[in-house]
Parts: sequence; C-alpha cells; structure tokens
Amino acid sequence: MPNSRKPVMAEHGLLPSRVAVALLHHPVYDKNRQVVTTAVTNLDIHDIARTARTFGLFRYYVVNPVPEQQALTERIRLHWLEGWGAGYNPRRKEALELLRVMPGLADAISDLTGEFGEHPLLVVTGARADGAVTTVAQLQDIMAGNPDRPCLLLFGTGWGLTGEIFERADIALEPIRGCGDYNHLPVRAAVAIYLDRLFGRG
Amino acid sequence: MPNSRKPVMAEHGLLPSRVAVALLHHPVYDKNRQVVTTAVTNLDIHDIARTARTFGLFRYYVVNPVPEQQALTERIRLHWLEGWGAGYNPRRKEALELLRVMPGLADAISDLTGEFGEHPLLVVTGARADGAVTTVAQLQDIMAGNPDRPCLLLFGTGWGLTGEIFERADIALEPIRGCGDYNHLPVRAAVAIYLDRLFGRG
Repeated sequence: MPNSRKPVMAEHGLLPSRVAVALLHHPVYDKNRQVVTTAVTNLDIHDIARTARTFGLFRYYVVNPVPEQQALTERIRLHWLEGWGAGYNPRRKEALELLRVMPGLADAISDLTGEFGEHPLLVVTGARADGAVTTVAQLQDIMAGNPDRPCLLLFGTGWGLTGEIFERADIALEPIRGCGDYNHLPVRAAVAIYLDRLFGRG
Repeated sequence: MPNSRKPVMAEHGLLPSRVAVALLHHPVYDKNRQVVTTAVTNLDIHDIARTARTFGLFRYYVVNPVPEQQALTERIRLHWLEGWGAGYNPRRKEALELLRVMPGLADAISDLTGEFGEHPLLVVTGARADGAVTTVAQLQDIMAGNPDRPCLLLFGTGWGLTGEIFERADIALEPIRGCGDYNHLPVRAAVAIYLDRLFGRG
C-alpha cells in the first residue's frame, strides 16, 4: 500500500509522497473550444500510474463525472490489483495502487485534504488566462517552504483544462517549450516531463 | 515536410534536427528475458511522434521485422498524412511526417546515414552490460563537438533492448532514476524525459 511506504525524499529535499496527480476528463476543451467530457483511455490509466509511481507520488486521480466511465476505470484498476493481472505483472499492481477514481476535482481535493489534514496546493500546467506563470524552480521553493502541505498537479485531457480550472488553481506552472512552434505533447509525456523536472534530479 | 523546416537550435546550441529516435520491437526481451518481437501499439506511434516533433527531431523510426506489422504502421501513418485524419487533425499530420517504418535497426541507420552523409552516433538508454554510462551533459558535449554527425537514440519495447544492441551502441545514456526503487517507466515517458533533458532547456 502506498501509505505504508517509507516517504522518499528527492535529492533537492522535496517530498513527492505528499504530491498527487489528477487527470481531468471534465471540464476540458475540445478542438473547437467547447467544454466537454472526454472518455477515459486505458493507456492514460497505466502510463500515468507508472510514471507517478516511479517518481514516488502519493496518488493518481482519474477524474470523470460519468458513472459508466468511473465503473470502467475501477474495473481496470481491480483487474491489476486483485484479478488476473495482479499475478501476471506485480509491477503494474504497484503502480495502480496509486489510482483513485473520482467524479469531480472537488472529490480529489477532499480525498487529499482528508489524508494530510490540509487543503492541497493546486497547480495547473500551461499558461494562465492572466499570463502569470510559475517556474519549476519557484514551485520547488514553495513546496520546500510548506513541507506539510499536500500538492495536487492538474492535467487535462482533450484540448486542455478550461479557464475555470485555471482560475481555481493557486499556481500555473510554466508550459513545456520544445524546440520550435509545435506544442502538442501528449498529456502522458507532459506528466512525465513535469515530474522529472520537479522530482527527478537535484 | 520535415526536410524543409528551418533547423531549430536548442538553447544550449544543440541541433535536434540531426537527431532521430528509433523504437525497436526486435530484438527486445520479454519478462522472462527471452528475445522476442513485440507488436506495434497505436499509441506508441502517436505519442512518440508528437514528442519527437515537439523537440524538433529529424525522424522517428518504428522498427519491426514483421511485414504485417510494418503494413499496419504504414496504414496508420498514411491515414493521418493523406487520409481522413489529415483534415481532421493537421497537428497530428505534422507529427506523423517524422515517422518511417523500418524492418531492422540497420535500415534506420542506413536511412540516417543517407540523409546526412555520416554514420549516426548510436545511443542506447539504460545501463550497459559493462556498466559504463554517459550522462546527458556528457552526451550534449559530444553532440556539440560533432555538430555535423547525426544521432540515433534507441528505445526498446517489451522488457527492454537486448545486450546485443547495447554492445552495438556507441553510448549508453544514464538511466532515469525516480524517487525510490520502482523503475518501470513506460517507454513513451522515457522518450519524453530524455528529449526534455537533452533539448528542452538550456
């Protein structure tokens, strides 16, 4: 169980064991900037769970308001935790132990608040409506200065998190820039890069 | 077309436009350390193409010796380059322009050698049999010292690249360490992290 693992400190003194990732399937934009609910994809479940586990995170929330989608995600989780998959690939089980299915962002926040007794620092990824962004180094300083406070990193599916989510967040992290004008990283890649920047090195 | 794009220089002066990624489906290990050929997965095609395009790479090789697998991959490529997908999502088209399907590693090396007139520097990811590893900073120095030489970054599917591939490579890059003993990143996440470390920042 993640809770029984010894807290692991990254080289720079941050505690990823108080950090969670949430993948939101609502509210997100579609390609025409309409607010929609996207469907859960199997690989989003596995990839982000494995990446979160590699970097020592506390939890990975898959947020989707549709009951059928929640049930599907929960079925996949249980397949790897208790079903045939648990024996076939125990390493996958370790990753999916981090997974929790939630109907809304508020439920993920409540869960994390309940675990740590404090409201999490809400961090979105991408440029905020008002243009203010925080660098990874600045976020590391903020986290090191509040070592007891949990932190929730929000990622969006589809064409990204809505302005409503950006307004609600405490911090908007600097976008990942590549080497040109193409800026369409898969969300799975974005999670990996942000976690590596935050916790992968000293 | 990727060839007509203006070369983009990363902040540290490296030219990712001479760098390619190859995803090998053979020879790789399975979970029992048998040498096998894995099947192409759709998301490996899309995710790694998008990540490679974000970081300004020259090409993305999907290497698989099975003709049916090559045909499937080529069909997916053409769907997004010329078929229905090209109109639906031009950004995906831009990414899949980097994709080339190859039967073997030697074919990918030949293609890159033909494009740049020089044999590429072969870089594998993970620990080499003899334990020698190169850091990202050392590889950046090597690349900056040989700016005309192309570079091919090799990634394995399944349970990883075989010893044969490690022996053949010029350089083995340091493994990605997380914050604990779990070391089972998805290959899609590993590609994203290595490209970010190499080209994403100054």
